[in-house]
Amino acid sequence: MIGIVGGIGPYSGIDLLKKVFDNTLAGRDQEHLDAVLISASSKIQDRTEYLMGRITENPAYAIAEVIHKLHMAGAVVAGIPCNTAHSLKIFSVIQSELKKNGDTIVVLNMIEETALYLQANHSGITKVGVLSTTGTYKSKIYNDALQSKGYEVIVPSLEMQEDLIHPAIYHSDYGIKSKSNPVHPQAKKNLIEGFSFCKQQGAQAVIMGCTEIPLAISEDEIDGITIIDPTAILARALIQFVDSNKLKPNRHGLLEK
Amino acid sequence: MIGIVGGIGPYSGIDLLKKVFDNTLAGRDQEHLDAVLISASSKIQDRTEYLMGRITENPAYAIAEVIHKLHMAGAVVAGIPCNTAHSLKIFSVIQSELKKNGDTIVVLNMIEETALYLQANHSGITKVGVLSTTGTYKSKIYNDALQSKGYEVIVPSLEMQEDLIHPAIYHSDYGIKSKSNPVHPQAKKNLIEGFSFCKQQGAQAVIMGCTEIPLAISEDEIDGITIIDPTAILARALIQFVDSNKLKPNRHGLLEK
Repeated sequence: MIGIVGGIGPYSGIDLLKKVFDNTLAGRDQEHLDAVLISASSKIQDRTEYLMGRITENPAYAIAEVIHKLHMAGAVVAGIPCNTAHSLKIFSVIQSELKKNGDTIVVLNMIEETALYLQANHSGITKVGVLSTTGTYKSKIYNDALQSKGYEVIVPSLEMQEDLIHPAIYHSDYGIKSKSNPVHPQAKKNLIEGFSFCKQQGAQAVIMGCTEIPLAISEDEIDGITIIDPTAILARALIQFVDSNKLKPNRHGLLEK
Repeated sequence: MIGIVGGIGPYSGIDLLKKVFDNTLAGRDQEHLDAVLISASSKIQDRTEYLMGRITENPAYAIAEVIHKLHMAGAVVAGIPCNTAHSLKIFSVIQSELKKNGDTIVVLNMIEETALYLQANHSGITKVGVLSTTGTYKSKIYNDALQSKGYEVIVPSLEMQEDLIHPAIYHSDYGIKSKSNPVHPQAKKNLIEGFSFCKQQGAQAVIMGCTEIPLAISEDEIDGITIIDPTAILARALIQFVDSNKLKPNRHGLLEK
């Protein structure tokens, strides 16, 4: 059974589960893979707020508790559809908590999966843009994973990050977390500006480095730049983990690592 | 915590969870309601096949086991987004299994919720059409619930049911269970014919009496006929059960019972 840490945010959890089903070879209900999703959004504090030092409680503890429950419900592998939760300050505590509790469930690392995917499938690409929350931006989650593999990483200026990209996700009026269905046009507009900025700086691909971004952007390519969706990559990695025979054949932008 | 019996079908489980989030007053992740969804599609046999006598294992046992797991994960109320599972031959066994296991979780009855909603919000309506699987059709789930409240119920002819409506859900090439994302145009075409038939027979509203149908039809009204979505009604009933203050104000077609 596949486990999903939902709730961070709620719609990103659904997006991951949907991408698991979308990428599974199944013609009948009974041919789909079993999955459990726990959306405990009320109990998991904001990841960026924690990384910025504005709250003291590490959301890792609540996330580890959700993963424990997923394990108890029968999951053998789990995915966390929240990029910011993969910063070392959070992800390492999740892993040590699970170890302490004796949880043997495997937690895939969405950032690592994305870097491996890029390496295996886009050999021509050397410069990669990343759009994300300010928490992911400042803790340099993608920079570390990509630079260690030889990529040059392009991110928005701090001003653009704080005025355009973070608000596209968090703004109380138009941010995706506040308006997910449908997404507010302003959120999409801000993100498109981010893609253009990365392209101007020479990026050949841009990673949607926050799981809210694919709720607004479904294109594989925008303005000649390849768009990389870590949620879809994680979905396929989860399927591959439990039953690689169930994985749908590749389509553009969703090749295997 | 809200519990969802997913997997019957997989996308209907997602649809219910999404409608829970869509109908919740929340501007931040932390303001959403907690939920757990278990999609155990591989373990739950087809409901129509059982009702038709083509398989002997009652899917009620596997569904009750999922509800037990939802309860263990912290759910106090559960919804089953599958109309056919509400036939008495299945639903009564689910309830007796839960009682036997001492599970105190409340399971809402989507059919009852839909009938109560109709009564409370569409007082002018007396003739109601129902489109469904052949399992729901033959076990007269909606007929019983609606006729006892004084409604006249209109369903397709048996020929139309078997040649158009059931295949829109189950056909191996174009049925919604086989092609959910995106839905095949043929499935939608068949369903629209079903709505037209109900209208010709005098129906003022049509219930989408299979949770796969709202995956193809998102309109509140088609050709002057009101479309009733039991998945959305169940979503709102689940929110109301755990925290009525979190329920979004009514919009057309989503009034309270």
